[in-house]
Amino acid sequence: MNQVKVIEIKKSVFADNDKDAADLRSELKRRGVYLLNLMSSPGSGKTTTLIKTINLLKDKLRIAVMEADIDSDVDAVKIKEASGIESIQLHTGGMCHLDAEMTRQGLDNLPMEGVDLVILENVGNLVCPAEFDTGAVKNAMILSVPEGDDKPLKYPLMFSVCSLVVVNKIDVLPYFDFDMEKCRTNVALRNPKAQVIPICAKSGEGVEAFAEWLLKEVNDWKNN
Amino acid sequence: MNQVKVIEIKKSVFADNDKDAADLRSELKRRGVYLLNLMSSPGSGKTTTLIKTINLLKDKLRIAVMEADIDSDVDAVKIKEASGIESIQLHTGGMCHLDAEMTRQGLDNLPMEGVDLVILENVGNLVCPAEFDTGAVKNAMILSVPEGDDKPLKYPLMFSVCSLVVVNKIDVLPYFDFDMEKCRTNVALRNPKAQVIPICAKSGEGVEAFAEWLLKEVNDWKNN
Repeated sequence: MNQVKVIEIKKSVFADNDKDAADLRSELKRRGVYLLNLMSSPGSGKTTTLIKTINLLKDKLRIAVMEADIDSDVDAVKIKEASGIESIQLHTGGMCHLDAEMTRQGLDNLPMEGVDLVILENVGNLVCPAEFDTGAVKNAMILSVPEGDDKPLKYPLMFSVCSLVVVNKIDVLPYFDFDMEKCRTNVALRNPKAQVIPICAKSGEGVEAFAEWLLKEVNDWKNN
Repeated sequence: MNQVKVIEIKKSVFADNDKDAADLRSELKRRGVYLLNLMSSPGSGKTTTLIKTINLLKDKLRIAVMEADIDSDVDAVKIKEASGIESIQLHTGGMCHLDAEMTRQGLDNLPMEGVDLVILENVGNLVCPAEFDTGAVKNAMILSVPEGDDKPLKYPLMFSVCSLVVVNKIDVLPYFDFDMEKCRTNVALRNPKAQVIPICAKSGEGVEAFAEWLLKEVNDWKNN
């Protein structure tokens, strides 16, 4: 089994998170690195989605992944094994989110030479991660079909801060009361500009659209 | 549509949560009221499970429900419409969990006359709610099949503090890589005493076992 680096994240002592986040974003801009903050509930399929997406993009972009979790390193190991890219595990020490300083601790432990895109897989949680700017260029989230189309009503902030909502597990749509149109309406209620991309990470269906969105984002960030 | 009471919960100013929780539990014991703290990820089927369970128990116990959410009152309305029992909505004002003082604010707004069992449906989140004793007699959680059997590895505290893990959505087992035995092993790793009850809230399969567990809990609490 692949060994991955496991970083025990320390809580920021002097916290001005908005400033830290803005500073980190400026620094990433200078270095030409795009950071995506990917959020979701536990079990929505973030890791499988990432593996499929990375495999579509890894010839075009140099990618690294930071997997944040309370405990375990199963996700970082899975990413490394299935895609071969650099992947580290961030342990949040029980904390339910990452802030900009914690994200920076992760980045400091990544070999960043030539990296175009870093994806931060945040702690599985629809509440707290939405409250903290990590310094990422954009926030995206994965909502899976079994969770229901009403989630934007219950977790408004999460859907407000995300530029992209990937709806995963569309292969099980026939077995759940999930209405894609209602989902789009509910997402638009929180953020009219958010894009919605339905996918099935397991089969790969729709993942190309997510990969294209990411590629365009990274190129725009580097060139503008 | 049924109207439900919506309570805007205030954050505790003087927080000694362990003491508050112990005090609340003693008070509930004196009044002969059993409080269950039910936790889960977003979209695991807490509300549907509750409706089915309440309908099995409402001739034997007088039950009331407190639905905690960041926003919306869809769950409290659903419970009231589908079971006819007293149900109120607690708005946490963006907070990701309930503590004992916040739980008490909810109880103060429930008509408690003759009530045997209060079920607190906590905020959908596997991280923060596990960190705060609400004053409940026991904690239970619902894990749904689409979330995966590895969740006890990633959210250790949640599974450590729960006496019961209800595994919901077993009707979709054929469509997901979820191994019930592996799930039981992972739960036991965090809490060897935790019971696991597989159910399908949608069809009602297995819900009787959860209802029996609750009935026994309430009777033991009142009589011992």
